[in-house]
Amino acid sequence: MKQLEERILADGRVLPGNILLVDSFLNQGLDVELFDAMAETWHRYFEDEPISKVMTIEASGIAIAALVARKFSVPALFAKKYDTVNLTSDRHQSSVYSYTKRKEYSIAISKRLLTEDDHVLIVDDFLANGCALRGLIDLVESAQASVAGIGIAIEKSFQEGPDLIRAAGFDLCSLARIASLENSEIIFAPADA
Amino acid sequence: MKQLEERILADGRVLPGNILLVDSFLNQGLDVELFDAMAETWHRYFEDEPISKVMTIEASGIAIAALVARKFSVPALFAKKYDTVNLTSDRHQSSVYSYTKRKEYSIAISKRLLTEDDHVLIVDDFLANGCALRGLIDLVESAQASVAGIGIAIEKSFQEGPDLIRAAGFDLCSLARIASLENSEIIFAPADA
Repeated sequence: MKQLEERILADGRVLPGNILLVDSFLNQGLDVELFDAMAETWHRYFEDEPISKVMTIEASGIAIAALVARKFSVPALFAKKYDTVNLTSDRHQSSVYSYTKRKEYSIAISKRLLTEDDHVLIVDDFLANGCALRGLIDLVESAQASVAGIGIAIEKSFQEGPDLIRAAGFDLCSLARIASLENSEIIFAPADA
Repeated sequence: MKQLEERILADGRVLPGNILLVDSFLNQGLDVELFDAMAETWHRYFEDEPISKVMTIEASGIAIAALVARKFSVPALFAKKYDTVNLTSDRHQSSVYSYTKRKEYSIAISKRLLTEDDHVLIVDDFLANGCALRGLIDLVESAQASVAGIGIAIEKSFQEGPDLIRAAGFDLCSLARIASLENSEIIFAPADA
C-alpha cells in the first residue's frame, strides 16, 4: 500500500537493533485517516470472506481493528495480556513469548466473545517473529472458530514470522513489507496490497 | 444517550463491589457501530471547540478514541502505562493510583505527539474515582496544551470522580450516568447528552 510506505519513509525512524519507530502515526499517535484507507484496502482484499469479527491484541492493534471492523460492519474484539497465567473456565487462553521483554505472558479472551460460529479477520500493527500472532491464532482455534485471514500493517519480512505464517497456509495481507533496515535505510519488499 | 443506556441494561452485568461488567460491547468486545453513534453525540456536544487531538489511555479507551477522532477528522493518541517510573526527557509523565490493582503506575506520552498548540478532547470508557482521568489532564497540562472537554461513556456518579472533575471546571459529557448499582439494579441519573 503506497500511502503507508510513503508515510513510513516520511515519519518512521530506524533505531539500533532493527527497530522501526512509527509511534507518531501508527502505535501511539494514531492517524485514523490512514487507518481508514488501510481498512478499505483490507476490505477489498478480503471481500469474499464472510467475516464475523475483527480481532487483535492490546494495545497498539486496537485502533486499527476498530476501524477495520467498522468497514466490515462487524464487532471488533481484543485479547488481553496478563503477566501471570490464571486459568479460568470462562476464557480462551494462550501464552506468548515476548522477545522485547524476554518473558512469557498470557493472553486471553472471554468465551462469550469468540465462538465456533465466528470467521475471524486478525489484524495487528506489526509482524516480526510472529509470537503474538500465533497466540491469537491459538485463541481462534481454541474457540473452534476459523481464521478468515490476517491483515498486518507492517511486516518485517527479514524475520521468521511472515514465512512461518504463510507456510502454515494462512492468507496474510501485509500492507508494507520491510526487506531490510540495515544501515538505517528502509528497503521495502513488494506489499500484498 | 438513550442507545447506550439501553445497551447497558440489555448486556451489562452487575458484579459484587459495585462493578458493572460491559466487556461484551464496550471494553473487550467492541461494538463499533455503537461507538460511531457515541462519537456523533460528542461531536454535536463539542462542535464549537477547535479540537486538534483526541486523547485516551490504554487499553479500553483506544477504540472509542479512534472513532471519535475519525468523526472530528483529527488524530487520536493514547497514554501508555508503565509499571515503573523511568524518567526520560522526551515524554510527558504522570502517575496514577489504581484502586483495582492497589498500586501506583506511571503514564506517559511522547512530547512530539502533544504540544502547546493542542486543544485536546479526552475520552475514556469509564469514570469512577477519576485517578486515570486526572493523570491524563496532568499530561495535557504538562504539555501546556488545553483541555477542550472530556467525553466519558459511563460515569459512576456515586463515586467521587465526576464531581471532582466538574468542580474543577472541566466540561464533562458523560453519555450514561450510573446513580446506583445497589442490589444489582442499574439506576441511571440523567445523562449529559
